[in-house]
This record gives sequence, C-alpha cells and structure tokens, in this order.
Amino acid sequence: MKVQALAVVGVGLIGGSVALAARRHRVTDRIIGVDRDPAALDQARTAGVIDDACLEGLDAARESDLVVVCTPVDDIAAQVVTAACRPGVIVTDTGSTKATIVAAVRSAHLAPGAAFVPGHPLAGSEKQGPAHARADLFEGKLVVLTPDAETDAHAVAQVRSFWEALGARVRLMDAAEHDRALALTSHLPHLVASALAGSLPPGLDDLAATGFRDTTRLASGDPRLWEAIFRANRAGVLEALGQFEERLRTFRDALARDDADALKVLLALAKSVRDRLDGPLV
Amino acid sequence: MKVQALAVVGVGLIGGSVALAARRHRVTDRIIGVDRDPAALDQARTAGVIDDACLEGLDAARESDLVVVCTPVDDIAAQVVTAACRPGVIVTDTGSTKATIVAAVRSAHLAPGAAFVPGHPLAGSEKQGPAHARADLFEGKLVVLTPDAETDAHAVAQVRSFWEALGARVRLMDAAEHDRALALTSHLPHLVASALAGSLPPGLDDLAATGFRDTTRLASGDPRLWEAIFRANRAGVLEALGQFEERLRTFRDALARDDADALKVLLALAKSVRDRLDGPLV
Repeated sequence: MKVQALAVVGVGLIGGSVALAARRHRVTDRIIGVDRDPAALDQARTAGVIDDACLEGLDAARESDLVVVCTPVDDIAAQVVTAACRPGVIVTDTGSTKATIVAAVRSAHLAPGAAFVPGHPLAGSEKQGPAHARADLFEGKLVVLTPDAETDAHAVAQVRSFWEALGARVRLMDAAEHDRALALTSHLPHLVASALAGSLPPGLDDLAATGFRDTTRLASGDPRLWEAIFRANRAGVLEALGQFEERLRTFRDALARDDADALKVLLALAKSVRDRLDGPLV
Repeated sequence: MKVQALAVVGVGLIGGSVALAARRHRVTDRIIGVDRDPAALDQARTAGVIDDACLEGLDAARESDLVVVCTPVDDIAAQVVTAACRPGVIVTDTGSTKATIVAAVRSAHLAPGAAFVPGHPLAGSEKQGPAHARADLFEGKLVVLTPDAETDAHAVAQVRSFWEALGARVRLMDAAEHDRALALTSHLPHLVASALAGSLPPGLDDLAATGFRDTTRLASGDPRLWEAIFRANRAGVLEALGQFEERLRTFRDALARDDADALKVLLALAKSVRDRLDGPLV
C-alpha cells in the first residue's frame, strides 16, 4: 500500500493520529494537513505530524491520491464533497455516524471518477487536539467501512489496504446497520456517562472513587462533537436509550420488590456480557 | 500505631489487602485470617498474607486487639457481634453501606467494653479474591468512618490511626449521610454499568470499543456482593436511580426536540463535573 500524497482534513486527535500512523508505517511520502485553525496547522507542522499545511480542502485534494476527512460529523459531508474534486481521488472519513453523511454526499455532485468510501475507525479518546495524537491509535483496532452497491470497488480495496497498513482490522457493514449498532455500543455509553456525571451534586467529589470515575470517563469528551453525533444518529440513539431505560426499569422493579433472585440474575447476566468482552478476540 | 494481633475476617480482595498493607507498614506482629472457606485461608497463609488461620471469628477475636470485618455486607453485622466478645477489643468493618449494619449491631448484645467503629474504605476492584489483594490498595484513598454519639472515642481514634498507618485519609460522616452519598457515587454507577452491559445484544462485541468497556467495567463485580449492597441501601439506591432517570429524560427530551443548544448545555455540564474529578485533590 503506497499513497503518493495523503491529505488529512482536520488535524485533531484522530486526524493527527492518522498522519502519525501513516508516517510510521511509510504509507506515503507526503502528508498535507488541512484545518480551519491556522494554529492547529502550525502546531502539527512544527511537530512533524504533517509536511504541508492548507486552509482549504480543495487545494489539498488537488494534490492528493487519498483524502481522509476527520472533522466533526456535521462537517464531514461538505468536506467530502469539496475533496472529491477530480477523477482518481479517493475520499474516506472517520465519522462515528454514517447514514446521514452518506445521504448528504449522495445528494451532492462528486466529480466524475472521484470515489467516496464511508469509514469509521473505532478508536479515540475523551482527549482532544493534535497534542494527544498517537501513531499507534489504530493498532489492533476495528475500522468499519460502509460502502454500498454504488461505491467503487477499487476505492474500497484501497481504503481497506490503507487502514490495514496502519495496523487496523477492517469490517464492511451496511451504513444503517452500523449506526444502529454504534448507537448502543458508543453513543449510548457517552450519553449514560454524561447523565451520570451530571447527577453528581457539589460536595461529593471525594466520595466519587475509581468506579464513578471509570463509568463517567466518556463525559469528558467535547460537547460540540457529541451534540453533533447524537443529532446525526438521532433515531438510533433514541432507540438505544429506550432499550436502556427499559432495562433500568427492570432493575428498579426488582429493587422495589426487594427481589434478591431477580437482582442476582440481572447482575449475573451483565457480568457474563462484560467478562466476555475481556476474553480473547475471535 | 501498633496492634499486638490483628484479625481480618474474610480474606478476599479487601481483607487480603488490609493484611498485606498492615504487614508492609509494620502495624502489627501477627495477622490472624478468618474465613469460612478453608481453601482461601490456605492460599492466604501459603502466600504469607496471614500468619494464622481460623474458621471462626470468635476464636480469632479472643486473641486480637483489632478485628477488621471484610465480609459481604449482609454478613458483616453478625461477624461484628461475634467479634465484639470481650472488653478492650475494637471491631471495625469495610462495608459499602453503613446504616443497616449499625442498626443490626445496635440491636444485638456486644460484650461490655467492646467497641464497634463502622467504616468504609473507598477502594476496591471489580476483581475478587485474595489473589488480587494489593498492599497499596488504600494508599491515598479515602476511608469513611461513621461513629455516632454512643461510639467509644478512643476506639474511633485507634481505627483512624490504623487506616492512616495504611496510607489512607480518614473522614468522619453520619451513617445515613454516607449511604445517601454512596448510593450516588458508587452503587448507582454499578447499577448503570450493569444495565448498560446487559443491553449489549449478541454479535456486537467487536463494535464495543474502549468507551463501552470503560463505562461497563464495574459490571464485572461479583453479583452476590452487589445484590446484598443494593438491598442493604435500597432506599438510597432507589432515590439515586430516580434522579438519574430524571436526567436521562432531560437528555431524551432534548434529543427528541433535536435541540442542539440543550444537548450542548447538558454535555458541557457533565464535562465540567467529570473534568473537575481529574483535578488536583483539595
């Protein structure tokens, strides 16, 4: 896998990590960083994360074979359409939601011969910014690609090879199926962590030990990014939240009845699921 | 702080860690382990965690100055009453709930001159058993003691010195206030983590990344221990759960209205709370 020039749009935690990983794995000879924030670009160039800096995605895409769009989800479709400017360019993204992005891109005009492969690396952090970027962020992690019948097969193969070169595993899924699943496995946990953190009254900080801190860690994420994710996957998140509220009611009912057996069954089921996640990957 | 002989009732993760920490900090010359499970006692003695092993708390308490009861919460009161068998013995415990234990002990007959100081070290792990015990488990951690007007002041001072010798900070609180606070900061997070883990359908394991795993880590705890904790602090947990469900509804309403500003406010509040917990201890 070799890319002549790679453009990374949005040089935050994810974009910065894509650049660092691409450099470490010698996937490309040149990395062009694109960001609206000149300070972020300066920082990334000074740190050697990118070779060249651009304020406009179009300028970078004209000189690149592969463009990876790593902006907040509500800005991805516009950046993809801008980058898909000439025959042969392959554009992919890293957004946590896929269906609304795919629909927005489809309704726009891509240059003939330009390809878009929707993607989502399941890697990240509650931390933000290029200073927290890591070359090994995608090592052993899963990247979901959600091409459909109209997506160029060669472009899909290229994007798959790109992520595999960065150390990731790749799985193909339907975009709507991805969004429903991620609502449960990623967006709901963020909402739950935020609701729990928001429930802590002032004055109890020193009684909030490791358990509270782990369970609420996600709440430190950027509110602007997560508001956009929740809204882009609104139906999925509402459905997942409904399932979760239903399970909370089951706990509440068992507790209200002082039903030891029911509580033990609920806790044992949860433990079996959680313990399974720590088992060997299959 | 020096204890001639220390008895630890229940040599699991917490009891084993109390023994290891007491030995490291040279708080005592002799540690007697008490457990119903002869295999756990053998394991603890072979590993040098305890010096002597007893199946009965009474036998150990007869030879000890300080008895630390580290059993599941629904067994603590009985063990405390058994251990408080002679003048001069000081008994404390490590239970996550306090009011029901205090009430049960008060309604029983303690030997004249025996003292009980209710306690709760805010340290632990989702792991179980003496194999996971650590000498540094209480280092820098908070231990809450909940004496009342009837508790012997000398005994409180001794138990405070004991925990401080093990590296912990000590805070005195009212038992009911402790239980209400811990319902929010510890018992609710466990319930939420369990409900979230239980919401993961089969087949989505590889889409459950770090965020899901962190948020549900507590669900790996022992169902038997947590069923007892929930029931011992039933009113507190139901109240905390009600507050949490109310906050979830606020998120749901904002999402149903597609209200970007309301979502951002909720997420920003949660972030400010969570970020504060990572700040320097005051």
